[in-house]
Amino acid sequence: MCQLLGMNCNIPTDICFSFTGFQARGGATDVHSDGWGIAFFEGKGTRVFLDPQPSCNSPLAALVSNYPIHSKNVIAHIRKATQGSIGLENTHPFMRELWGRYWIFAHNGNLLDFSPELDGSFVPVGLTDSELAFCWLLQELRQRFGSSCPDPAELFGTIQALTVAIAQFGEFNFLLSNGDCLFAHASTKLRYIVRRAPFKQAHLNDQDVTIDFSALTNPDDRVAIIATEALTDNEAWESMPPGTLWRFEEGLPVQTLQTLAGPVKKKSA
Amino acid sequence: MCQLLGMNCNIPTDICFSFTGFQARGGATDVHSDGWGIAFFEGKGTRVFLDPQPSCNSPLAALVSNYPIHSKNVIAHIRKATQGSIGLENTHPFMRELWGRYWIFAHNGNLLDFSPELDGSFVPVGLTDSELAFCWLLQELRQRFGSSCPDPAELFGTIQALTVAIAQFGEFNFLLSNGDCLFAHASTKLRYIVRRAPFKQAHLNDQDVTIDFSALTNPDDRVAIIATEALTDNEAWESMPPGTLWRFEEGLPVQTLQTLAGPVKKKSA
Repeated sequence: MCQLLGMNCNIPTDICFSFTGFQARGGATDVHSDGWGIAFFEGKGTRVFLDPQPSCNSPLAALVSNYPIHSKNVIAHIRKATQGSIGLENTHPFMRELWGRYWIFAHNGNLLDFSPELDGSFVPVGLTDSELAFCWLLQELRQRFGSSCPDPAELFGTIQALTVAIAQFGEFNFLLSNGDCLFAHASTKLRYIVRRAPFKQAHLNDQDVTIDFSALTNPDDRVAIIATEALTDNEAWESMPPGTLWRFEEGLPVQTLQTLAGPVKKKSA
Repeated sequence: MCQLLGMNCNIPTDICFSFTGFQARGGATDVHSDGWGIAFFEGKGTRVFLDPQPSCNSPLAALVSNYPIHSKNVIAHIRKATQGSIGLENTHPFMRELWGRYWIFAHNGNLLDFSPELDGSFVPVGLTDSELAFCWLLQELRQRFGSSCPDPAELFGTIQALTVAIAQFGEFNFLLSNGDCLFAHASTKLRYIVRRAPFKQAHLNDQDVTIDFSALTNPDDRVAIIATEALTDNEAWESMPPGTLWRFEEGLPVQTLQTLAGPVKKKSA
């Protein structure tokens, strides 16, 4: 399996501290050594760093840990391969463009016998179930909403219906963002924390590193961190119940929907 | 204006030497300081490094100069902004997926009053004429060939026709690749060199750096480098005549077509 890390904030923030702990799990403190990747939204632009090497000793991961890129939405992934060989084309997160915005997706889980019909608008480059699910999800969004993005609540409802459809095929924890907000699906395991004033110290689980957020933040700052496993050992991480889809915006969870229902409900004419 | 750098090889090769010289032009030895980017194909996978900062003092560019990524197709760009503000979303090269392959595009030039009709399949995220031309080009390829990639010669002919159509709007030097081959259009200025046995020493124009390729290569290696301006001062760079489109494959120019013709020829029924 893999691990996910996401960040959603109300002001552009760097993820160096959290990524330092996360990076260690890619071959040092944990077994997720089949590649890693991280995507940063900066306005509408996106930077994606991918490496099919273990993150624990990747020069690129060392750079990302030490080079503060300020972003309101970040998605990172360390991989333990299930489907698709180790290789750059199978390394998460994946990126596509829809409605003139980049979309970023990373998945933790395993989908069995998932083979939806593709119309050619989004086609996987690699061989993972994850990229296939992402392509199908975007295809269905475009089919339903045509050439422009719906309002966030309607978009969220449709992503929930599509998530229910995909999750029937197996474990489907994911993070998804278009740069405006971050969608997080807890299929089996996902946690989050919101850091806001009064800011305190935090200490990593995976490395002996402490940060004093009170010295680095403003009172209005708000940062939501979403991760497969808690990254710090002295903060209260919330468990996200299995079968819940979340929308994070401006550093807060703003909407939640169940995804444990049966087959996708289709509108009748 | 901007500058382009491309590499096409018969075996995966690193571009550290050429990029070291190219990088200096982003604010040190030349004025192209409005961002830079580089894309590497590794098999079907792609890594894109983008930075809206000048390349001459970018930590990311320093990493790319020193971290040997082996690739058969590379496209790099340093920007002097004409259309679109300085920002990540306007930084070349651009990436999209078509027919289950990533496509990478970078442009040097300026297209005036270019406003083609888009059907929504590829929509620019930023505000450059360059990304718009790329999106339109991919849209037309998909419209003409449907869900699968034609053979290289047919693809090349269609890219030539589309290039003629776009080049009517202004200067349109570009590099384009899907990982199999590299297309290069000389609208006003582009040069190339093929390095092959017997390999010799090369010395950069922009920094006092010499490399001895004979110590680093095998006799069968073949590397084509394409650039706006010659990168070395002791090698014979070929000028690519204005109005020519080239296809490089396995480290060689394998096909050339004129693009100085009039309007696009449409097939009559």
